[in-house]
Amino acid sequence: MDRSRFVIESDKAQEMAKELGLTLRQLLPTLVDSAQSLARPPISQFPVGAVGLGSSGRIFVGVNLEFPGLPLHHSVHAEQFLVTNLSINAEPGLQYFAVSDPPCGHCRQFLQELRGAADINILIISSQNENNNGNPKRDKANSKEFNPLSQYLPERFGPDDLLGKDVPLLLETQENALSFSEFANGEITGKDLKYAALDAANMSHAPYSGCPSGVALVDVEGKVYKGSYMESAAYNPSLGPVQAAIVAYVANGGGGGYEKIVGAVLVEKADALIKQEHTARLLLQCISPNCELKVFHCVSLKKKSKNPS
Amino acid sequence: MDRSRFVIESDKAQEMAKELGLTLRQLLPTLVDSAQSLARPPISQFPVGAVGLGSSGRIFVGVNLEFPGLPLHHSVHAEQFLVTNLSINAEPGLQYFAVSDPPCGHCRQFLQELRGAADINILIISSQNENNNGNPKRDKANSKEFNPLSQYLPERFGPDDLLGKDVPLLLETQENALSFSEFANGEITGKDLKYAALDAANMSHAPYSGCPSGVALVDVEGKVYKGSYMESAAYNPSLGPVQAAIVAYVANGGGGGYEKIVGAVLVEKADALIKQEHTARLLLQCISPNCELKVFHCVSLKKKSKNPS
Ligand SMILES: [Zn+2]
Ligand SMILES: [Zn+2]
Repeated sequence: MDRSRFVIESDKAQEMAKELGLTLRQLLPTLVDSAQSLARPPISQFPVGAVGLGSSGRIFVGVNLEFPGLPLHHSVHAEQFLVTNLSINAEPGLQYFAVSDPPCGHCRQFLQELRGAADINILIISSQNENNNGNPKRDKANSKEFNPLSQYLPERFGPDDLLGKDVPLLLETQENALSFSEFANGEITGKDLKYAALDAANMSHAPYSGCPSGVALVDVEGKVYKGSYMESAAYNPSLGPVQAAIVAYVANGGGGGYEKIVGAVLVEKADALIKQEHTARLLLQCISPNCELKVFHCVSLKKKSKNPS
Repeated sequence: MDRSRFVIESDKAQEMAKELGLTLRQLLPTLVDSAQSLARPPISQFPVGAVGLGSSGRIFVGVNLEFPGLPLHHSVHAEQFLVTNLSINAEPGLQYFAVSDPPCGHCRQFLQELRGAADINILIISSQNENNNGNPKRDKANSKEFNPLSQYLPERFGPDDLLGKDVPLLLETQENALSFSEFANGEITGKDLKYAALDAANMSHAPYSGCPSGVALVDVEGKVYKGSYMESAAYNPSLGPVQAAIVAYVANGGGGGYEKIVGAVLVEKADALIKQEHTARLLLQCISPNCELKVFHCVSLKKKSKNPS
C-alpha cells in the first residue's frame, strides 16, 4: 500500500520494462490488472484501472472511486483519478495510457482539459480480450492498439471553444493569485490546513467559471492531502475539490478507510458563482461522519480579466 | 412560451417542412436558432439548442439549463433536456437531431441509454458554419451532415456492458413497481403531489443502482411537473429527478422563473444506496428558496432480482 503503487519513478519503470523486454508504453497494459485491484467501487463492484505514462517517464495509476449514499455524480472515474494523480505529482503531460475498459464519454470529455489532448494515446484492454489465449501479460504487451483520443471523441467540444490559446490548461501553472486578504503580499507559508487548502485553490483549474477552490484533508496521523477543483469546458465532468483530495488520500494515504480522515478545510471565493461548500460537506459527512469541514473564503489579487469568450 | 415551443405535433411538423420544401429531417436544423433562444445558461451565457425527430414524427426541443450557486454537475445539457422531453411526452424513440454545438462527451454517453443509440443521427450546426454564405436557413437545411452517434462515440461503454438484453432502457416501460406500502394493491391514483412523485419514480430508469426516484413540483398556479431520475451506465452523466422535473417546468410551465415553483415532493426508497434527498434539497433551495421539499419513502413490490452484470 505504499506510494509506489500509484506512482512508479522513471528509473524503476525503465528497469521493469527492460526485465520484460518491453518498451515503456508496452509496459502499461501489463500493469492494469494490479491497478484494478486498488479500485474502490462499492456500488458497481466494477473495478476500473488506468495506467499512464507521463512526459517525465514516470508511470501513474488511476482507479475508480464510488460513494454509497450519494448521487452518482460524486463518483471518480479511473481516468479522472489518473489525471489528478499527475497533477498531485506536478507531472507536465500525459502521453499514453492503458485502461481496463472503454473510457466513458464523461472521461473522454474531461481529458480534453489537457494540452494536446487529441494526441494522448489510449489502449483499451477489454477490446483485446479475445486474443488472450496465451500468456495474457505478453499478449497485452504486444498489442499495438494504442489509438489517439481524437479518434475516441471526434469533433470534440473543448477548451478551444471557450478559451483563448494562452489560458493555462490542466497540469499547467495556474494564475489564480488567491489570498486570504487583499493586503497579503509575498509568499504565503504556514503549516496550517487552511494554507494547504489555499495552496490547493491556487492550483485549481477553473477558467470557465472563474471560481477556483481547494480542499485539504488531514488524517488521524496528521498527514495532509490537498485537492484542487478541476473544471471541464463541458461543465458536468468537472471534478470537485473534495474528490481531488480523496484521490490524494487514496494514492498517498497508505490504503486506509475514509473514516481516518478527521479534518477538512475548503477554500473558495466568498462570492463564488460555483459554490462547493454544501456539496463538499455532503460528501465528507457521508464518508467520514466525524470529520469537521471548515470553510474559509479567499479573494483573488489578480487583475480582473474578461470572462472567457 | 406555449407548450408548442418545445413539442411540435407531427401534422404541424409535416406542414412546416412542406412549406419550406424540406423533408422532416431537413427541417430540424432550421429550428435550432429559435431553440437556442429558449436556453437558460446564466453561468456560461452559452445557449445550446437541440431539435430532435421522434419516431412518432413529432419534433422535440432541448436546451441547456445552468444553476448559479451550485457545482456545475447540476447543469442540464440540451441533449439531456431533449431526451427528458421525449420521456415526458411518452415518445418511444429518437431518430435524428440537430444541435447548435458539438455534443460533449457527457451527452454522447448519456444518449447511450436509448435503445439503438448507435444509429441516432446527429447534425452539428457549428461545424457547418463556414458554408453559411448564402441563406443560412437553407444552407443548414441542405447540409447532409447527419452522422450516426456511433461515429461520435466509437468503442462506447454502454448498457450492454452491464445489463442483460431484456432490461428496459430509457424511454421504454420501466418495471419499478414502487408503492408507499407493501400492502398496496391495484392502481394507485390520487391528485396529491406525493402520488405524482411516486408515478415519476415508477418511470425512473435506474437499472445500475436499483434506486429509482421521482420528483413532482407544483407552481403558484397549481400546475404539477413530474421528473424521473435517469441513470447512465457511466454513472456521472445520470440526470437527477429534480433536474428532470425542472425540464418539465421549463417545457410546459409557460416560461416563468423558478421562484414560481412553490412545492416539491421527492419519492425514493428508504434504504437507497443512491440517495437523492440532500442534493435535491440543495438544488431546490438554490433556485426557489421558498419551495418546501417533502420526502416520502417507497418500497418496491418487484421480486428481488440479481444486480446487473
Ligand atoms: Zn469514465
Ligand atoms: Zn453535453
